Amino acid sequence: MTKKKILVLGGGFGGVFVAKTLEKARDQVDIQLVNNNNYFVFQPLLPEVAASSINSADAVVPLRQLLRHAQVRQAQVMGIDFAEKTVVVMQGARLTPVNLPYDELVLALGTGVDLNRIPGMADHALTMKDLTDAHRLRTHVIGCLETADVTAEPEVKQQLLSFVVVGAGFSGVETVAEVRELVRRALKYYQNITPDEIRMYLIEYAKRILPTFPADLAEYATQQLESQGIRVMTGVGTKSATSTGVALTDGRLIQSSTIVATIGNGPHPLVSMLGLDLQWGRIKTDRFMRVPGYDSVWALGDAALIPLVDNPQEDPVDFATQTAQFAVREGHQLATNILAKLSGQKPEPFAYTSKGSLASLGMSKAVADVYGVKMSGFFAWLLWRGFYLSFLPGFASKFRVGMNWILNSIMPPNIVQLRMPPPATRYIHFWKGDKVFEPGMLIDGFYTVINGAFKLTIDNPDTGEHFEKVFGPGEHFGERVLVKSELRTGLVEALEDGLLLFIAQKDFTRFASAFPFLDNYFKDYIEKTFGGADKAFAPGSSNQQPGSPAQLKPKPKLAKQS
Amino acid sequence: MTKKKILVLGGGFGGVFVAKTLEKARDQVDIQLVNNNNYFVFQPLLPEVAASSINSADAVVPLRQLLRHAQVRQAQVMGIDFAEKTVVVMQGARLTPVNLPYDELVLALGTGVDLNRIPGMADHALTMKDLTDAHRLRTHVIGCLETADVTAEPEVKQQLLSFVVVGAGFSGVETVAEVRELVRRALKYYQNITPDEIRMYLIEYAKRILPTFPADLAEYATQQLESQGIRVMTGVGTKSATSTGVALTDGRLIQSSTIVATIGNGPHPLVSMLGLDLQWGRIKTDRFMRVPGYDSVWALGDAALIPLVDNPQEDPVDFATQTAQFAVREGHQLATNILAKLSGQKPEPFAYTSKGSLASLGMSKAVADVYGVKMSGFFAWLLWRGFYLSFLPGFASKFRVGMNWILNSIMPPNIVQLRMPPPATRYIHFWKGDKVFEPGMLIDGFYTVINGAFKLTIDNPDTGEHFEKVFGPGEHFGERVLVKSELRTGLVEALEDGLLLFIAQKDFTRFASAFPFLDNYFKDYIEKTFGGADKAFAPGSSNQQPGSPAQLKPKPKLAKQS
Repeated sequence: MTKKKILVLGGGFGGVFVAKTLEKARDQVDIQLVNNNNYFVFQPLLPEVAASSINSADAVVPLRQLLRHAQVRQAQVMGIDFAEKTVVVMQGARLTPVNLPYDELVLALGTGVDLNRIPGMADHALTMKDLTDAHRLRTHVIGCLETADVTAEPEVKQQLLSFVVVGAGFSGVETVAEVRELVRRALKYYQNITPDEIRMYLIEYAKRILPTFPADLAEYATQQLESQGIRVMTGVGTKSATSTGVALTDGRLIQSSTIVATIGNGPHPLVSMLGLDLQWGRIKTDRFMRVPGYDSVWALGDAALIPLVDNPQEDPVDFATQTAQFAVREGHQLATNILAKLSGQKPEPFAYTSKGSLASLGMSKAVADVYGVKMSGFFAWLLWRGFYLSFLPGFASKFRVGMNWILNSIMPPNIVQLRMPPPATRYIHFWKGDKVFEPGMLIDGFYTVINGAFKLTIDNPDTGEHFEKVFGPGEHFGERVLVKSELRTGLVEALEDGLLLFIAQKDFTRFASAFPFLDNYFKDYIEKTFGGADKAFAPGSSNQQPGSPAQLKPKPKLAKQS
Repeated sequence: MTKKKILVLGGGFGGVFVAKTLEKARDQVDIQLVNNNNYFVFQPLLPEVAASSINSADAVVPLRQLLRHAQVRQAQVMGIDFAEKTVVVMQGARLTPVNLPYDELVLALGTGVDLNRIPGMADHALTMKDLTDAHRLRTHVIGCLETADVTAEPEVKQQLLSFVVVGAGFSGVETVAEVRELVRRALKYYQNITPDEIRMYLIEYAKRILPTFPADLAEYATQQLESQGIRVMTGVGTKSATSTGVALTDGRLIQSSTIVATIGNGPHPLVSMLGLDLQWGRIKTDRFMRVPGYDSVWALGDAALIPLVDNPQEDPVDFATQTAQFAVREGHQLATNILAKLSGQKPEPFAYTSKGSLASLGMSKAVADVYGVKMSGFFAWLLWRGFYLSFLPGFASKFRVGMNWILNSIMPPNIVQLRMPPPATRYIHFWKGDKVFEPGMLIDGFYTVINGAFKLTIDNPDTGEHFEKVFGPGEHFGERVLVKSELRTGLVEALEDGLLLFIAQKDFTRFASAFPFLDNYFKDYIEKTFGGADKAFAPGSSNQQPGSPAQLKPKPKLAKQS
């Protein structure tokens, strides 16, 4: 008998537990699990990774170590042919699509983030979905402290030391608490920052935080957060975001260099393109987790909408909730149902009642509601950590992670900032009146106007010459990065709310210089547009702005450090 | 009395030990240390970070935790005005240059890497200079294992499982040994890879490895490496590198997806632009570590050429060697000399004799030559680790790092692949006959020819139409990424050795669509150049290649996963 091929897409709680349960029947089935990353993320611990409370190695487990009897494939799912029972994936550096045939297909793709409803949010907010996000947030927060410690500009300092978390579900509450904890512990190494300069905001559109918790626990959590100096703002949403702050629906503006969005859960991009029947962005299944109308297709976890009753109404309580707890139980049941089907037996409907909820609040405190028993403080926090340890495979892992948790809590915080290169192209939103750049700033890239209007002003302090130009959609500025790489001579301001596409100097210069057509275009453009105004500031001319480093004597020793 | 301002540029061994020694006289001096990163890297441990033998947190120390009484500034040095005694730096996201005045300036900038003498090496080789490099190598090696485990193409698999390290000094020897160790330990999780499929090469231009070691220890090290299956190739250099391998000076070609270059030490980019008197790429100092001809400028560490005798000849033995050991002693002496100068006393010349050398060989083995006593094996390795522990600040750090070393050695290896986004633009070298892409591959970006000649061939299997075009410098292909985003229909091959600039689809599309001029150019170009040949493959036409995922039924369900 050839073994049946079970293909699981997604390596979160749902996918991993389907595969783990199926492994017990590995004499009957071939199991393959496809995931973008080669590791499982214990998502509830991401805020603690972001805050250096734990090492990232202690919040993730390589999928191959979790699943010793399944084929783990690190690949991107490109498409599914339900008729041919084939999934197309792309793996490795060679971009050849690979076809994976299946007998039974399990969709465990989780959810995606869609922040597009709030202008600027997708381009300026950090998210907390995966390990990379946690690292990025940590790096960003430490970078803010580093700059705040040495800047001479009070306005910049205030902005760097303000941190905004949008959304006060589990993830938002834990993130703001953990960032607070990181900053608090790190401060003793930043001599020029005092604790009262730190501003932390938690913004929630609903009337209270932790909406899925009992009201009194949410109240306890609010008090706990406020006692740590976090401003909890409920009943207010966000209207727009830029690189300098966030505008609230009540008209207030918070200047901040750090916006973390824990809102905007939407369908995984692949799920929304498969043509399946979705409700609330989730794949509708029957009570057995089969996808109706599709042969041998199953779905579970956050991606699926699994009814808990026979005739579910449009009411979330009639469906399985999107938590790890449910996903784990769904995984067991789904695997059991697949095996039942293969052996000609009847599947069982999914049934489960939540055992409770836990949310960590930083400083070794948490709130918990377990089997209806409400807990808060240190004991709740221990329970929370214990739940994770119970999940880790093998004694050795449990021991190391447990050890590190203890060691980390007594050690100075890890404030190493391992920076990632910034993206070559990025969209930057501006509010009316915002400055894009000012004279004296370093030339760093090229800007194209997507929408809005931006005004460039150049004043030559030596000749008194004045130059002005307004740029609209499709127009561009900063192209002089191609001919010189020193300091800005002009001021650019937004005349109205607007959006720019920024291209970093290195990438723009590489592109333009490799591509004669573009190079010629810009040389002509610069000559025609700026003429004399530009020449006055050309490198080597004697009209350079006073104080620019290019003027350093005995001869210019301006150099870029690698 | 106002305190004198001592400004230290660079946070390696030299810079840190200058600052640490000066801290003891903090009632007399203000100390500021500027470094690109906010952490000190224990560089000799980088190969072990790359191999997951230790966590990165255990190989670096935040500078602020090392130096509690100095101002640490994370910033990039842009230039130095020696006449005005001012250093210009750039810090944070705001690109305004900041001027730092000094009374005494210490240059401790280390060295840079210059791989430009070997075509393709700078663009295709990984380096081992800083923590990011170590992470990148680790991520890359694990990525090779992931893909090799699931690929169906034997040629690709072989290339992915071949690893080349160029240069067999300390760094090269330790890197190849540690990568071997990572692969060996990881293999049990990769069911489809057998140990005999792994190829490891260590390539050294000199006659033997570890040239600074006694010959018999180098011989022991060679045997040790070879017993681990590493092919040690001496007396041979590298001629060129591409993304698929490395060509040797003796004409041999090694197909490999992984090239690590530990060669090419050159001056730090800033050092080479300061106009100072350099020899062998290092700043010439007097015996007191002052830079002759400059007022109050000092240099030490790898960046400096410090004579050990009064009339040094053109012989390396007359100068301090570029090792951590020397840098630490130089730091003490330089700080002492600055303080002597400030109090009107005489400085002392730098004098030090090496206490010996250590090189780790993986598998808990090392070679050591300490006070003339030669050691090898486990004891040498313990000594090696002990040296690092002795350097860590505070008992808590020592304890945690020591604990983690023990835990890591008994734990399964950490094969979590935390990927970094690939750069938006990159140069890719090709040898004559190499394929750039083939029909059926995913469209991923746009190519411009920098040099060489590349031939595009499109064959339409349905109509039998044939299209050919050769591209030379300044010409481009792949622009159809702008109008469709599915699979390549053409084959592009290098007609001679050549170089392309690649721009990733996302960035290229953003740029072209924001910039009407470019968008129009490409639309015209595509119509004029491809005409019918292109239309035959346009999305939605019935002439698509068989087997392409776009053909999946009942309707195309091709989607990109985020």
